Amino acid sequence: MRGAVLYGPRDLRFEVRDMPTIIKPTDAIVRNSATCVCGSDLWPYRGIQPVAQPTPMGHEYCGIVEDVGSAVTSVKPGQFVIGSFFASDNKCPNCHVGYQSSCQNRELVNTAQAPLLRVPLADGTLVATPNVPSDDMVPSLLTLSDVMGTGWFAAHAANVKPGNTVVVVGDGAVGLLGMLSASQMGAERIIAMSRHDSRQKLAREFGATDIVTERGDEGVDRIKELTNGVGADSVLECVGTQESMMQAIRATRKGGHVGYVGVPHGVELNGEELFFAHVHLHGGPAPVRHFLPELIDLVWKGKINPGKVFDLTLPLDQVAEGYRAMDERRAIKTLLRP
Amino acid sequence: MRGAVLYGPRDLRFEVRDMPTIIKPTDAIVRNSATCVCGSDLWPYRGIQPVAQPTPMGHEYCGIVEDVGSAVTSVKPGQFVIGSFFASDNKCPNCHVGYQSSCQNRELVNTAQAPLLRVPLADGTLVATPNVPSDDMVPSLLTLSDVMGTGWFAAHAANVKPGNTVVVVGDGAVGLLGMLSASQMGAERIIAMSRHDSRQKLAREFGATDIVTERGDEGVDRIKELTNGVGADSVLECVGTQESMMQAIRATRKGGHVGYVGVPHGVELNGEELFFAHVHLHGGPAPVRHFLPELIDLVWKGKINPGKVFDLTLPLDQVAEGYRAMDERRAIKTLLRP
Repeated sequence: MRGAVLYGPRDLRFEVRDMPTIIKPTDAIVRNSATCVCGSDLWPYRGIQPVAQPTPMGHEYCGIVEDVGSAVTSVKPGQFVIGSFFASDNKCPNCHVGYQSSCQNRELVNTAQAPLLRVPLADGTLVATPNVPSDDMVPSLLTLSDVMGTGWFAAHAANVKPGNTVVVVGDGAVGLLGMLSASQMGAERIIAMSRHDSRQKLAREFGATDIVTERGDEGVDRIKELTNGVGADSVLECVGTQESMMQAIRATRKGGHVGYVGVPHGVELNGEELFFAHVHLHGGPAPVRHFLPELIDLVWKGKINPGKVFDLTLPLDQVAEGYRAMDERRAIKTLLRP
Repeated sequence: MRGAVLYGPRDLRFEVRDMPTIIKPTDAIVRNSATCVCGSDLWPYRGIQPVAQPTPMGHEYCGIVEDVGSAVTSVKPGQFVIGSFFASDNKCPNCHVGYQSSCQNRELVNTAQAPLLRVPLADGTLVATPNVPSDDMVPSLLTLSDVMGTGWFAAHAANVKPGNTVVVVGDGAVGLLGMLSASQMGAERIIAMSRHDSRQKLAREFGATDIVTERGDEGVDRIKELTNGVGADSVLECVGTQESMMQAIRATRKGGHVGYVGVPHGVELNGEELFFAHVHLHGGPAPVRHFLPELIDLVWKGKINPGKVFDLTLPLDQVAEGYRAMDERRAIKTLLRP
């Protein structure tokens, strides 16, 4: 089969890779109905997080179980399943408290931009949908594999409650789905920090009530103006830079919550500033597995439609163009159909 | 009158200072029944946080109201009162959500090591006890002004719940009272990180069930051993150094909570480590005012006796010896009687 392989900065090739096979009895092989490009794929794509050798790419997936190892009991061939970018046993103490992305036996799934992939720890990782979904539901289900699960975790980590004022820093796919999550959780006011017309439009569709185009300290000042000088109850940090993190902390009210899910690149938090900020901080890699049953239910019942975040759909063999479009910000997020 | 004045590193003098007077109609004058030396006073005393000029010292106080300004309505002369090191209006949006130490109009109280002091914003700062207390209750009531309120906030910020496993980093007065707080909140297991015999003894009196003498990564390893490799549910950081902060974060289980109240000195948190730590962080200057009614009630009813933390009592005019004893770790905390 052929799949995506990153050779170096902006050198993404679609080339022959080995067919995945069952290696351990706990493995499953999944035939992707769809896969996609993640904002976090752009870090290595841009060379900011260099790859040492040609590296298969992709960690978002959903599709039909093709085969399972002898120890797998919870999913079977023919079922439609979704899994997380971190495979988990769903049994260890970290999993038990809902942090499957910190599973003591976690394994990174990173070969998903291909027609087929091997998923380790299948019983603890994959969740089947009630039936095989219609084709138009597949994009929304695919988002649950990472980007929607991550936006949802950001809103949870930021303690979004009904009536809250919420700020979302970052108008990428995760930020946009963070807005959808906050809206679903009953936030009264959702302020999107965004300076891109197309993203602002989607932000409003997902529930944003206000748009702030300023960034950094100016952005913080604007949030303060909009909140009687107090700051927001909940701020979702969905970027991962020093500027975005400080913007999030400074936009939060005393006693408020910052939920951070942008993978940090070069972020250092000054202890003294944090001390006097008086905010709650929580975040990290989203425990997608924890949220999958609830989110599958919401998509299945048509209550949320996170698949709208895909504004470009390409056949899988054009994956390189999918990366380029996101790198050049021509696309928010690229869906790939094998 | 005479009070404590810091001239430079380890140069603390007891000398003539102006008598405090009502400056604003919202002020009160309090005649101290007792005051004390705080662990945080040692930062400037040791020159780590240098003073630019001779500086009056002290921010812990309780005693009899001597006089009030014309706008003060909630306390009156003759009442016994306790207040926080941050005076607050108890009306602004930050106060309303329980963060009086971030009051929009806060003023630092920093002249308390004296027979009398001026307390600004008296209505929002001072809380009266039901009656004038007996003399033996005064030390416990005095701790509510900062050190007990701070330990209590640390336990709150670390989300201590009945049945929790709690670690306390720091065996100073705040750490010890953090143990008392965790015990009062129903923690099942309280692990004190301490290497001083006298402090270990008090730790056990305050509810510690285990003592860990190792520090840094070794200390973290020991906590992991004691918690089946998982880490603690709640960790109270009561020091404020880089080492203690990282020790706290690393000793916490995935999804657990770090409550930090040690004023940070040179602390920088790496974003990536924090991200993958998957902990909750909260802390800052304790909103003592918020907790005063509850804590006064606990002391008044004899349910807690935080005054045990004072292991040295001196007349106020020996305040310099009080500092020396704490600096040289001969005393945990010095009570001063005017």
